[in-house]
Amino acid sequence: MPNSKIINIPIVLKVLSFLLIVEGLFMLSGIGFAIYFGESIMPLLISSLITIFVGLPTYLLTKKNDKKNIGKRDGYLIVATTWVIISIFGTLPFLISGSISNYTDAFFETISGFTTTGATILNDIEVVPKNILYWRAMTHWIGGMGIIVLTVAILPFLGIGGLQLMIAEMPGITPDKLHPRITETAKRFWAIYVIFTVSEVLLLWIGEMNFFDSVCHSFATMATGGFSTKNDSIAGFMPYTQYIIVLFMFFAGTNFTLHYFALHRKFDKMISNQEFQIYFWIIVIVSIFIAIGLFLAEGLGAENSFRDSLFTVVSILTTTGFVTTDYSIWPSTLWMLIFALMFIGGSAGSTGGGVKIIRHLLLIKNSFLEMKRSIHPQAIIPVKYNGKSVSQQIIFNVMAFFLIYILVFSFGTITLSMLGYNFNTSIGATIAALGNIGPGIGDVGPVDNYSFFSPFAKWFLSFLMLLGRLELFTILIVISPAFWRR
Amino acid sequence: MPNSKIINIPIVLKVLSFLLIVEGLFMLSGIGFAIYFGESIMPLLISSLITIFVGLPTYLLTKKNDKKNIGKRDGYLIVATTWVIISIFGTLPFLISGSISNYTDAFFETISGFTTTGATILNDIEVVPKNILYWRAMTHWIGGMGIIVLTVAILPFLGIGGLQLMIAEMPGITPDKLHPRITETAKRFWAIYVIFTVSEVLLLWIGEMNFFDSVCHSFATMATGGFSTKNDSIAGFMPYTQYIIVLFMFFAGTNFTLHYFALHRKFDKMISNQEFQIYFWIIVIVSIFIAIGLFLAEGLGAENSFRDSLFTVVSILTTTGFVTTDYSIWPSTLWMLIFALMFIGGSAGSTGGGVKIIRHLLLIKNSFLEMKRSIHPQAIIPVKYNGKSVSQQIIFNVMAFFLIYILVFSFGTITLSMLGYNFNTSIGATIAALGNIGPGIGDVGPVDNYSFFSPFAKWFLSFLMLLGRLELFTILIVISPAFWRR
Repeated sequence: MPNSKIINIPIVLKVLSFLLIVEGLFMLSGIGFAIYFGESIMPLLISSLITIFVGLPTYLLTKKNDKKNIGKRDGYLIVATTWVIISIFGTLPFLISGSISNYTDAFFETISGFTTTGATILNDIEVVPKNILYWRAMTHWIGGMGIIVLTVAILPFLGIGGLQLMIAEMPGITPDKLHPRITETAKRFWAIYVIFTVSEVLLLWIGEMNFFDSVCHSFATMATGGFSTKNDSIAGFMPYTQYIIVLFMFFAGTNFTLHYFALHRKFDKMISNQEFQIYFWIIVIVSIFIAIGLFLAEGLGAENSFRDSLFTVVSILTTTGFVTTDYSIWPSTLWMLIFALMFIGGSAGSTGGGVKIIRHLLLIKNSFLEMKRSIHPQAIIPVKYNGKSVSQQIIFNVMAFFLIYILVFSFGTITLSMLGYNFNTSIGATIAALGNIGPGIGDVGPVDNYSFFSPFAKWFLSFLMLLGRLELFTILIVISPAFWRR
Repeated sequence: MPNSKIINIPIVLKVLSFLLIVEGLFMLSGIGFAIYFGESIMPLLISSLITIFVGLPTYLLTKKNDKKNIGKRDGYLIVATTWVIISIFGTLPFLISGSISNYTDAFFETISGFTTTGATILNDIEVVPKNILYWRAMTHWIGGMGIIVLTVAILPFLGIGGLQLMIAEMPGITPDKLHPRITETAKRFWAIYVIFTVSEVLLLWIGEMNFFDSVCHSFATMATGGFSTKNDSIAGFMPYTQYIIVLFMFFAGTNFTLHYFALHRKFDKMISNQEFQIYFWIIVIVSIFIAIGLFLAEGLGAENSFRDSLFTVVSILTTTGFVTTDYSIWPSTLWMLIFALMFIGGSAGSTGGGVKIIRHLLLIKNSFLEMKRSIHPQAIIPVKYNGKSVSQQIIFNVMAFFLIYILVFSFGTITLSMLGYNFNTSIGATIAALGNIGPGIGDVGPVDNYSFFSPFAKWFLSFLMLLGRLELFTILIVISPAFWRR
């Protein structure tokens, strides 16, 4: 590890400016839709040019010192600032097009996109120009697999430091390496991501959706984002479309390493993975339970009950946040189960947010072993995962993560309640933002939006989304005084 | 530590039967009130005789093996079964007097007493005979400092094993030893407890309360229990009485080791204790905040706002659960703060329940240090408490405790919601039972009671109270399969 006392400013600037160029190019990609739908190309074009014209000269003028690698502190700083800066520039299409009139709302919408939260301040989505909705879906897609992971895939000079960056951005404990070279691992992750996205576009397109809606919804699905192009989200689409989206939400919430193995026909690696098994069985058991409840209580047909239940369970567990039905008016036992799922989250190494299933699994295993350890204090009883012992240090880290999560959740709830929001809204909005879900409970239920929050609350929720997406540590470390102290 | 593979049945029986005799004698102590108020002495007398006649022969017939000490497993088993068995026999006065007509309700009321929860199923407390209300308050008093601690104080043959028993029953991390001999430590704890109780009785008695009410309320205060002899709890008493109760709730929620030092004029030990400082400042800051809120929002007078606020904050933080005002109708920001206090709890080594302040303190300190450790992975950065380093093992244990607490809380909430109770009631009743508080939120608010729960829910809540009082581990260990496996 290089000297971590001095922050390597040139490399930080180099990476940041490169990312701005990438962001600008992503913006340009929406111009095709603007032309097709006869909309003005100016908002995306101007936004793109501004972003690139800030990024390009900085990139070219910054000399990189090849002898210096990226240290731990550089890594945290790059990732934290990247996410803030791409969100700052990402607001431009919304503002220039006039779709969103003030900066707070535009920033909220953008960071909600990048963090794949999917919480919106738009009261009427369908009046927004299509090319702007495309950019809105694109923010999901960029943020889902991660712009840093993309950078590691295409910037060879990042070298070993790239691993440091990926650890800071990717969800889960530590990213499994698919290849000894981190660049190759990042490429593979993005390749799988693209394959799934293209497949979903095609499957949606051959149904009732047009090409535009297929693309936007596929971006939002694979990123576990949740922005739709429709005011009533997925509710108005036919069962075929809903089932396709369920399937791809399920894929998006699965560890991408397992997809890699599956694509290489190593299905046993997927099936024998404990986190995947629990992910699968939570969906099956909770969906069936809720489906029976809806069938009995709401008098819906069997298929309709099953579909509403399955869709909602997968959408919330994977932290996507698409909606086909208003779960907040379900019998309380049923919606409370959905609320409980908000605290679980997707798999490690997936695009899903939240605490992640593997952490819960390790914590529950460790809790049971604590009883055993109390009876046999001399014995060393490690937690096992997929047949291997998990080091005490990882368990300690997972515990610390979960406790800080609970701490931030409590702090968030108390803060919102201090700002005058009611109990359900305060806990609902906090977990929906922190878990990158989108819909919560209370006044931010599945058919509500976030426009009524005060500007301060919107900035606060934006901060929670970022904390959640980067799994707490990266942001908390960078804002801790110890980080800046010599 | 002696061989822990075989449970020492004779010593378990010896201790249990001794405790039944003690319980029977405590029952007898209420007969004076029965005579004074012209009530039948039969319920307490018969209950006492049954209890003693089960305990005495068992005690006399059980041979103790002096060569065998109490092992870890014996300790857990003794404490867990003790609390169940004294609760089973503790129902007798309620049942024989006819004050409670079914066993489920009687058991709920008794274990709510012993665990110092103070949740009641009585719809009209004031029709219950005084001597039965005395027994009800007495269950608090026995359970507050702990019947095991009392046993350690008076049963010399427990020897070193007594420490094991006290660890399993006493709240907090590990009980500070006030004396090298555990028997002496236990004696001192009980002596302080008696001194405070007698002082409170006198101070209440010189006010408006009669001797009977003074005794019952003092038992409930010092145990941080919360059973009152009045239907409207403390609301009908004058400010003097309320302030006295606040003061003694504050004492009861303080570490008794610090009281010991204070009684020996070592006030600096109390003032410099970090847990005590935080306990003190939480009360001051939250009380002032809520008092201002009540003054502005409710239009109450300044003193009334301050008193209602202070009383409620101290009552909930110490997990007593006495009520002077209905906090559930306060503005949501204010009652949500009270709800937040339910997750904090009193000090270690006090009679207060909940998670305890010291655990929160260590967890928050450790969370901040995790940031520092992430930047300097090579450095060993221990948590400091009262100027000393805390071992990694204690931190690990505290983390495990908190996680299991959250797990049990989630499990409890989901279980109650599955039984058909609404969201606020499910979380309110779970934390009120697990934290040994009494009043919660929802349908178990400060002016409600627990009579409406189904029998199954009442047994489940009884289990949560016991889990909470014995701080999870003792009960969970004894019900774990590993405990019974060779």
